[in-house]
Amino acid sequence: MKNALPVSREENFNEWYQQVIRLGDLAENSSVRGCMIIRPHGMAIWERMQQELDRRFKAVGVKNAYFPLLIPLSSLEKEAQHVEGFAKECAVVTHHRLLQKDHKLVPDGALEEPFVIRPTSEMIIGESFARWINSYRDLPLKVNQWANVMRWEMRPRAFLRTSEFLWQEGHTAHRTREEALQMAQQMLGVYRQFCEEVLAIPVLAGEKTSSEKFPGADITYTIEGLMQDGKALQMGTSHFLGQNFAQAQEIKFKDEDGTDKFAWTTSWGVSTRLIGALIMSHGDDNGMRIPPAIAGTQVRILPIVRQAEDEAPLKEYLTKIENILADQSYHGQPLRVEIAWHDGRGGNQYWDSIRQGHPIILEVGPRDMAAQTVALSRRDQVGAKKQFLKLPELAQIPTILAEIQQQMRQTIADRLATTIQTLNTPEDLQRFFRERPGMGRAYLADNPQVQEVLAQHKMSFRCIEQGQTPNPQGKCLVSGEPVAQQVIIAQSY
Amino acid sequence: MKNALPVSREENFNEWYQQVIRLGDLAENSSVRGCMIIRPHGMAIWERMQQELDRRFKAVGVKNAYFPLLIPLSSLEKEAQHVEGFAKECAVVTHHRLLQKDHKLVPDGALEEPFVIRPTSEMIIGESFARWINSYRDLPLKVNQWANVMRWEMRPRAFLRTSEFLWQEGHTAHRTREEALQMAQQMLGVYRQFCEEVLAIPVLAGEKTSSEKFPGADITYTIEGLMQDGKALQMGTSHFLGQNFAQAQEIKFKDEDGTDKFAWTTSWGVSTRLIGALIMSHGDDNGMRIPPAIAGTQVRILPIVRQAEDEAPLKEYLTKIENILADQSYHGQPLRVEIAWHDGRGGNQYWDSIRQGHPIILEVGPRDMAAQTVALSRRDQVGAKKQFLKLPELAQIPTILAEIQQQMRQTIADRLATTIQTLNTPEDLQRFFRERPGMGRAYLADNPQVQEVLAQHKMSFRCIEQGQTPNPQGKCLVSGEPVAQQVIIAQSY
Repeated sequence: MKNALPVSREENFNEWYQQVIRLGDLAENSSVRGCMIIRPHGMAIWERMQQELDRRFKAVGVKNAYFPLLIPLSSLEKEAQHVEGFAKECAVVTHHRLLQKDHKLVPDGALEEPFVIRPTSEMIIGESFARWINSYRDLPLKVNQWANVMRWEMRPRAFLRTSEFLWQEGHTAHRTREEALQMAQQMLGVYRQFCEEVLAIPVLAGEKTSSEKFPGADITYTIEGLMQDGKALQMGTSHFLGQNFAQAQEIKFKDEDGTDKFAWTTSWGVSTRLIGALIMSHGDDNGMRIPPAIAGTQVRILPIVRQAEDEAPLKEYLTKIENILADQSYHGQPLRVEIAWHDGRGGNQYWDSIRQGHPIILEVGPRDMAAQTVALSRRDQVGAKKQFLKLPELAQIPTILAEIQQQMRQTIADRLATTIQTLNTPEDLQRFFRERPGMGRAYLADNPQVQEVLAQHKMSFRCIEQGQTPNPQGKCLVSGEPVAQQVIIAQSY
Repeated sequence: MKNALPVSREENFNEWYQQVIRLGDLAENSSVRGCMIIRPHGMAIWERMQQELDRRFKAVGVKNAYFPLLIPLSSLEKEAQHVEGFAKECAVVTHHRLLQKDHKLVPDGALEEPFVIRPTSEMIIGESFARWINSYRDLPLKVNQWANVMRWEMRPRAFLRTSEFLWQEGHTAHRTREEALQMAQQMLGVYRQFCEEVLAIPVLAGEKTSSEKFPGADITYTIEGLMQDGKALQMGTSHFLGQNFAQAQEIKFKDEDGTDKFAWTTSWGVSTRLIGALIMSHGDDNGMRIPPAIAGTQVRILPIVRQAEDEAPLKEYLTKIENILADQSYHGQPLRVEIAWHDGRGGNQYWDSIRQGHPIILEVGPRDMAAQTVALSRRDQVGAKKQFLKLPELAQIPTILAEIQQQMRQTIADRLATTIQTLNTPEDLQRFFRERPGMGRAYLADNPQVQEVLAQHKMSFRCIEQGQTPNPQGKCLVSGEPVAQQVIIAQSY
């Protein structure tokens, strides 16, 4: 059977990725370099992600706020450390007016102080925390923002690295070190659970090495996913910032004993990059595959109309089907069903739906109507014989969705388990560099010599997995020096 | 009794408005002129608005998408008409890098073509529609975007007129004039119903006069609210754009008969300005008052802890109360309850809650615990005796919320009905200009002479109300010329 995409993952993974996005109607490039148009089908996935995460954030006492898009240069200057880190390439607003001259528009009204479009709202949120926090009674303070941010990307890549992207950034301030540390870990847990249970993507969770952690953080926690080309993708991070950020931003509180203290802070975020993770984890040579729990449409109904006179009775029959489905739920919510009446692409509707990755397709034509059945296809079994369900059997759909979700998750779990190689000797490491099978687990010291070796092979430290028992016998495979914990290495996005 | 705000509406409405926002923790000014920080309490209102509207949009087949923040100048040049209209004052991005020179950051990397930050996404959505629509089968196309937009405001005013604001813009394309016209009216109906049923703000719905309509629209529908100072606030608009926009943007489709036709389009939007409408409709001299259906917190519980040893048993008692409330729902959703454990402002919690405008406050202290009661105060009855409820009586709360919602709505409906004056003679009109009681309803021609007279009195046409029977006897109170329909005039925001 021919695949629904012109290029397979094996032929050219990068080109395949672009095709899944374009032919699956997820997003397209815009006239602004590095900025995407997220199409309704892609946006529905992000909306589901937002809802699922937002609910989990609120459950741990986080509230949303909104901070300005523009950041004064003076705010950035205060934080030279961060400017070095990520604010070099950013959109700079220098004028506040356009004038029409000879049928052309030209910038006018030069600003006394230019602004940048936020690459993050960290600074302005810190300034606000300093104003809002006075007493220990104001703590903990837990604020999140859903917003667009910009970083001028020289080599953009849809969803993974775009000049503008959508994300959330959470910031919290606490009275004690322990509470802040626990919060940073808790949010990593929220991300991990969300990835595993909703996105069906089991991940590695751990700490960044000190060379890879966020500048200014005491500890950076990360979740790392394994993509189908063997590369790692950092899917979310949670930072324990100690008192570093509070000191820089003067976030102080009067404690119960009357003394002034610096707060302990955290920050954590995920972005539309997660849609890239979904594609590279679950997509196949027929296009996108969306796990049922996150799919904007779980059941897509394709009416087959061959003659105009079929339309009216078919509509009636579809209403019957819709009513049956309306009574059912999956993942604690009503089923998300869409009828593609006038999809505009005629006979290609079936393959369009496959490329878009809806978990279940129901085809309903005059013959089905006569037999009081529907023809069910599963996106995870393209090419398999269609299943003809009698109407009462539509009650099986939530079970089928649960099965699809479970299998998608198991596939990723298995891939992760079989791909990670434990490297015990320098020879193992060299073979790993040659064969590049994916992720490696090894005792390696976090020093410039080792980083250099990894960089030569386009690899880097991904994370020190959680839950390891320190091993006093561990020795670095490169330098021979003692190292108590193994670290995951891989090529990454 | 002293009021909870230093200034009353009567003393200084503008100053009162600012105080409601500041002391009610809704928003604050930022270091960027004209840009607000929307605080968690204000953001919770916008989140509810988004959820309620989004659900209604989806029910009529609208899907969300996301378009880039930046607009190339070349796109704006195509639409000189719109540039005249609103894009003159806007943020212009001219550089894509910052360089550190002598400890200062300076713009670097001049862009070949500058960008503006979207004042609207109309142009780029139009370009996308032109690409996405080929056949009549692609119609109708209904897309909405929730996003931030910027217009450089010289005289900003929190929520009402800010340089950056949050909004939604819906755009639809249709095969026939009738379908598009119906869509524009349907969306006005959605806005009207949302304002009346959720925001508890009955509004006037109608058409803009041709001098006041959106440039490029054939018809602009509007909902206009009456604020407590007698001024009108345009709360939402829906435009029937005919084929004007489709012609400018080349939005064409091949019809069933094989001919190429221009689509018929609409657009419609509301913004965070609706929070301004809430404040100026429902606020009183004690601060904000939020209708239960839109309140982020409907029931705010204030634990009263006088001695440290009370805390543990009180927590237990509160869990009991929370569990009882968790079983209840209002407006089809579970009750939104918040326990203000460590609000940080000690004894002022009660008055802070009043200024914030939560509909119901429950105070719970050791004495209540002993008596197995809670002390209920209603935000709409500040100063009234507290009501002591036994725990089973907490089941009355949804009924109380419904009663509050209904009374808030009735108050606005009554104010609207009694404030609008029908002006039958030129003398009525002159008296209306002198006394400025609010809105006037009169036969007035939409010509420069009348517009000039209105402008002299800082008034304008607000709308031609829906549902009028044209009167062939109607005559303009200024020019005497025949006018078939009455128009609403008022000073406006």
